Order: sequence, then structure tokens, then C-alpha cells
Amino acid sequence: MTSLLVESSATDSPAPLPQTPRTRPVRLGDRGSHDVALIHAIIDEAPICHVGFVDDAIKGHDTPSPMVIPTIPWRVGDELMIHGASSSRMIRRLQEGGEACITLSLIDGWVLARSAFHHSVNYRSVMLFGRPRLVSEEAEKRAALDALMEKIEPGRSAKVRAPNTQELKATSVLAFPIAEASAKRRSGPPGDDPEDMDHPVWAGVVPLRLIAGEPEQDPAQIARQK
Amino acid sequence: MTSLLVESSATDSPAPLPQTPRTRPVRLGDRGSHDVALIHAIIDEAPICHVGFVDDAIKGHDTPSPMVIPTIPWRVGDELMIHGASSSRMIRRLQEGGEACITLSLIDGWVLARSAFHHSVNYRSVMLFGRPRLVSEEAEKRAALDALMEKIEPGRSAKVRAPNTQELKATSVLAFPIAEASAKRRSGPPGDDPEDMDHPVWAGVVPLRLIAGEPEQDPAQIARQK
Repeated sequence: MTSLLVESSATDSPAPLPQTPRTRPVRLGDRGSHDVALIHAIIDEAPICHVGFVDDAIKGHDTPSPMVIPTIPWRVGDELMIHGASSSRMIRRLQEGGEACITLSLIDGWVLARSAFHHSVNYRSVMLFGRPRLVSEEAEKRAALDALMEKIEPGRSAKVRAPNTQELKATSVLAFPIAEASAKRRSGPPGDDPEDMDHPVWAGVVPLRLIAGEPEQDPAQIARQK
Repeated sequence: MTSLLVESSATDSPAPLPQTPRTRPVRLGDRGSHDVALIHAIIDEAPICHVGFVDDAIKGHDTPSPMVIPTIPWRVGDELMIHGASSSRMIRRLQEGGEACITLSLIDGWVLARSAFHHSVNYRSVMLFGRPRLVSEEAEKRAALDALMEKIEPGRSAKVRAPNTQELKATSVLAFPIAEASAKRRSGPPGDDPEDMDHPVWAGVVPLRLIAGEPEQDPAQIARQK
């Protein structure tokens, strides 16, 4: 029987993203990367991102203020998507043309060094800058929201009750080009100085991972199934 | 034998923080809280925070830009501390009087509803606004860095090689008052609409937890111990 599997790694890797004044590493340049596949992989894995923007219209507050809002990121092709209530502060500001810095951070472990100074974190992160496009066409918006559902649980988008017109209107989807972005990561053991290598304290990495536990069914559903 | 245990919940709980234009909930007010004990508990548990600020001096970039940087938060009394290389962009901008929005997000689970619209995330988060104080006095700075180490591994600060003068100079510690801050949280099963309760799809919560794995000793230390 002939295998119908498509080799997913067979495509040519795309060119790295260009460096910009905002994505050029200031320090520790060896931890930085503009590799598209790495940036995509971090976005695909991250359950959460933090969206930073400047709010210059807070009622009762005079000066523009930085705002950082957590939300779920997902990817459709070469765009990073976020969504939210159309009435929310974040969606309104960004829809009006506001610029965002979106940061996604995956923590992989505590790095315990012999010296206090060389303690660190193993991580993979992405910083992305840009202004979003509002996904307004209904078919594209539905497909985007389906893709979000598929990220949370593959196969689920076909099983749930789909959004009705009112729900679709109450939800806004914003798409950011993955164009001005960079990744950073650290991995491996601590980088202590040579003169500290015999200091008598355990050194190494304590791995950290976000783990899904036993699913807890809605008690209301259990009651109805009895 | 008389128990020497001190009841940790015996203290009077402090008054909630005041609402400000920035910490008053815009939507879903029932998820918001200004309770100090809850805010402290989230800061104490969070391994990471995202620090948002506005950078108006990026070389080669004309306009002020939002920036969101991940770092480790910890608490000393009623201040939230962060640290970083004194030469880093974040430290420099905030030391110059820049205002920050620091957001800490703990993800507790995916909320899988019957309708696409009511999918959600169980979480606990804190948003804190303010300008920092530079911790410059040496004894206070050492104590603050010890407290960071204790958060990562209790008892470790006494065992590691302490920072020397040069390392201390290369590291800046910033302290933010926990004064203009609020918490938000969601817990429990999905909140589907009554007419969807019999929709035939599994509904409930998939708990998520950040778990520490088996420690991986630095190979360089294993080699020396042989």
C-alpha cells in the first residue's frame, strides 16, 4: 500500500525576517533569531501572549499609558491572530490604528548556577511589532475562529455550536503580519565563571512545562447524562 | 507537647487597593478584584511577568513604540521587584522615569464550552501600573536579590556564591509600589447559554499547570564529581 503521508519538512525554509531598529538585539545577540520557522513554532505552541499598546484615551486619566493585556495568540499562515470582545479597550485602541508589541514567552526551566549572578531562565520568546488588520469578511472571520478552536483542541471546531450572527458581531478578530518580529531563546546548563566551577552547590536546570491535567467535565453535563 | 504553629490566617486583612481610571474594570466587572492578599498571592506564584513601557528613543525608529519584555517578578513587602542588566533597554527607560504596566498571568485551564462563543480560559492575573524606585543602597539591593533567589528555590541564597561588586553594579533592581493594581480571575465550568445545554459535545475544563520536571545536573559538575 502506498503511503499518502505528505512530508511536512519537505518545503524550502523561508528567508529570515529583516532586522529593524526594534528587533535588532540590544544585548546577548547570540540568543536572538529572525528565523521564520522558529517564530512560527513559538506562536503555535504559546497558549498566551501579552499585547502591549499605548492608551491615550483613558477616562479620568490625563496622560497616555502603556497597557499590557493577556490573550490567546494563534496563527493563520503568516499572520498572528488575536480576538476579543469588540467593546474591549484593547480591541478598540488597536482597531483605531494603534500599534502593538506582542510578546509570547514559553518558560522551559530555571537555570540554577553556582553564582547568584549567573542564574537564569531557559525560555523561547517572540516579540512582534505592528498594526493589525481587522478581519471583517464573514467567511474569513469564521475560518480564523475555527483555527483558534483547533489550536485549543484539534477537531473541536466541527463539533461545537458555531457562532451566530450576534456572537460574531460581538467578537473582533485582529490579524498582525508576522513581518517585524524576532525570537529569543536560551537553553542548556548554567554559564558560570571558571573560578566558580567548584563552588559547592548543586548546579543545573530544573525543567518547567505547562501540563494538561485530567479533564473535569461540566457538572451540569454529568447531571444531564444520568 | 504544645503546638508552636503560628496561624498564618490570623492577621487582619488589609483594605483593598483603591480603584483608579486604569484599574476600574471596563467589562466583566465580577472577574475583577482589588484585594491585596489576592494580588500578593498571584505575584508570589508567577514565575514570569510582562513589563510594558513606551520607548521613545529607539535608534533608527522615529515614533515612540510600545515594548513588552518578559522577566521574573518577585515581591518584598508591598513592592513588586524586577531586575535586569543595567545596560538593558527596559532598565534604562524605566530608570529615566518611564511608566510601566506590568501584567502577570497564571493560566489554570482551558474552558471548553458547548458553543464556540463561550470557550474561555481559567486564569488569575494582575495588572500593575507605576513608576519604579531604583534600589541603590547595597544592603537593600543584596537583600532584594536574595529574595529573588528564595523565590526560585527556598534556602538557595545562602548556598550560592554571592554577587561581587562588579556583578552588583551590572545588575539593576527596580521596585514598584503595589498601589495602582488590580487582579482578575475566572474559574469553574463553562457558562453556556440555556438553549445549548444539550448540544452533544464534551464540555468542561482541562486544567493546566506549570510543573517542575526532574532536575538535570550540569554535566560539567557531574564530570568534576567523578
